[in-house]
Amino acid sequence: MTIDAATKTMPYRAPLGAGPAEIDTPALLLDHAKLIRNIARMATFAAGGPAHLRPHSKTHKCVEIARLQLDAGAVGITCAKVGEAEALADGGIADILIANQVVGPIKIARLIALARRCAVTVAVDDAGNVAQLSAAAARTGVTIRCYVEVDVGMARCGVPDGTAALRLARLVHDHPGLVFGGLQTYEGHLQNVVPLDERIALTKRDMAAARAAKEAVEAGGLAVDQVSGGGTGTHMVTGRLPYMSELQCGSYATMDAQYRAVGGADFDNALTVLATVISRPRPDRAVIDAGLKAVTPEFGDPTVLCDGASWLDFSEEHGELSLSGAAGELRVGDKIELVPRHGCTTVNLYDRFHVMRDGRLIDEWAVAGRGRSQ
Amino acid sequence: MTIDAATKTMPYRAPLGAGPAEIDTPALLLDHAKLIRNIARMATFAAGGPAHLRPHSKTHKCVEIARLQLDAGAVGITCAKVGEAEALADGGIADILIANQVVGPIKIARLIALARRCAVTVAVDDAGNVAQLSAAAARTGVTIRCYVEVDVGMARCGVPDGTAALRLARLVHDHPGLVFGGLQTYEGHLQNVVPLDERIALTKRDMAAARAAKEAVEAGGLAVDQVSGGGTGTHMVTGRLPYMSELQCGSYATMDAQYRAVGGADFDNALTVLATVISRPRPDRAVIDAGLKAVTPEFGDPTVLCDGASWLDFSEEHGELSLSGAAGELRVGDKIELVPRHGCTTVNLYDRFHVMRDGRLIDEWAVAGRGRSQ
Repeated sequence: MTIDAATKTMPYRAPLGAGPAEIDTPALLLDHAKLIRNIARMATFAAGGPAHLRPHSKTHKCVEIARLQLDAGAVGITCAKVGEAEALADGGIADILIANQVVGPIKIARLIALARRCAVTVAVDDAGNVAQLSAAAARTGVTIRCYVEVDVGMARCGVPDGTAALRLARLVHDHPGLVFGGLQTYEGHLQNVVPLDERIALTKRDMAAARAAKEAVEAGGLAVDQVSGGGTGTHMVTGRLPYMSELQCGSYATMDAQYRAVGGADFDNALTVLATVISRPRPDRAVIDAGLKAVTPEFGDPTVLCDGASWLDFSEEHGELSLSGAAGELRVGDKIELVPRHGCTTVNLYDRFHVMRDGRLIDEWAVAGRGRSQ
Repeated sequence: MTIDAATKTMPYRAPLGAGPAEIDTPALLLDHAKLIRNIARMATFAAGGPAHLRPHSKTHKCVEIARLQLDAGAVGITCAKVGEAEALADGGIADILIANQVVGPIKIARLIALARRCAVTVAVDDAGNVAQLSAAAARTGVTIRCYVEVDVGMARCGVPDGTAALRLARLVHDHPGLVFGGLQTYEGHLQNVVPLDERIALTKRDMAAARAAKEAVEAGGLAVDQVSGGGTGTHMVTGRLPYMSELQCGSYATMDAQYRAVGGADFDNALTVLATVISRPRPDRAVIDAGLKAVTPEFGDPTVLCDGASWLDFSEEHGELSLSGAAGELRVGDKIELVPRHGCTTVNLYDRFHVMRDGRLIDEWAVAGRGRSQ
């Protein structure tokens, strides 16, 4: 295997104090003041209860940001994959929820190794998976906390109702090495509903399935310690529901253009992609060095932070901008910033954040969970 | 800066000889036999001339594949970014075309460093950029070969016509430290035209702009050593045009579902994403552990290599499949393979290829240019 053999030229790193002109592009910029403000704002919201904040790290994948969230009062961190959890644990995060199913012998072995060094919770929705988790935990003497996932209308993973939730919760409870910790939910189908009042109404309606499942499990004689769920688009409702105990929203910390567009999440866009104009083929056209490998397209076009410039088209390595008014003065070599429409997948393209304060580089933070989809 | 401080848990690595069941997911698989066959097939085509093959590495970003292409007769390698060129040079590739503009003092300084250790060519379409490249090259005593980019109808980068091409070619020729090497073209707007006969006709029509530019520059008294261009979708035309000397197609080596769908490129899908079924919420539905961070969506849905299973929806970390017939037997923990619709951006999500021969792991190759968009 030759994978470790290559000498690797290190990417250019700007000196501390650098402004955008001295930062190579495309680069991920993170406005430190806005980040801190976003984290504080959500912490203040969550302090009103009843749900405690357990922010999802799938957006930022960054240990430093997770630590700031914990410092601001979060009770733990959420992530999507075992690989992301490993990256968080490597950074000293002590209480991690993997809000998805952990399936198969390789993944379960890694989960067991993780559970030896931090508190770890996983979602389950399948009896066979529960048996495998239990066998591995019991064999190695570790304890895995499990949330039974309940589908609240997203129609993705999860058991369909309270009866099925009780059945699986009992199974977890009866299996050695496992602890039934509560319920996992995610109203992902509602995060982008507009207008806001409809989103609020639908969230109240659909999250009632979480309450019903909680009541069914409790009626069956099992305590439901936690009911976990929520996202940035629905936090204002889900975080106030009396039966919810954990709020998993994640995008709020860095934000993106999508959550700004649908409204209801009063947070600042702390995350931008810095790009360079590399061609001015026509007076009304600029081409920048950020394409599909620098900013993701699935939710729509990025917002161009330059008066008179708007996004026209993605190529793999190029972004094309339409120019009018003052933007017509843009020249080859000029730098501009974009707000990604979807922060989570855009961050996943980069190895590091350039942390900016008053327009100057104050730190670099690793996107430690980048590419850790396994 | 804390970026280097973290202890990093190494991703799980399957042993040599492993089959898909022993490979953690999501994972990028590369069928070695199909790869070799694709490389040989394009090499055979290019041997018929007149254009020599200079394959684009933006799809695979892999030194081992670039070496196989050179061994099969390619005259050099193409890439999109300075960062990718650095990764290729680190792996010993000696002749690299960066088929885009290299703009700004940081990028140009890195280009100069690169030119000290390999032959490097860049595209230019701007007089100011030419002056900056020249100043840096002359100051450091290195030589940068430049292709003047000519727009052949894609309406992205490039000068518009032969007159402008001659003007810029003269500028390159007259500037110390630079060598005018020829013309860069790319008929990117035609790669996906269907039906094939229309794509062929349009390619012949539009690439005439390359011929016209070549003739204009030659009429101005400058030799045009190379005319470079082409993609996997148009190689069968562009590679046979008498005025073309270099063919830059790249996707053919690994292929993807998009180039299969539009036809005309007779290569095998060597690239797949291996995924695991993590939930079976309904008889007709399976959820796998490969979503937007494991296979990219911009060209459309991946092809599911499982009879009766078809792609239904992307989530960030999940793929949802619709099941019928035999696929209804899929169980939690089963593994399936997907052919990505767009290989270039999908490969860019991974750190390594699992190289498979007869269904067994024979090697791991680094995606050395992964994330090297700078």
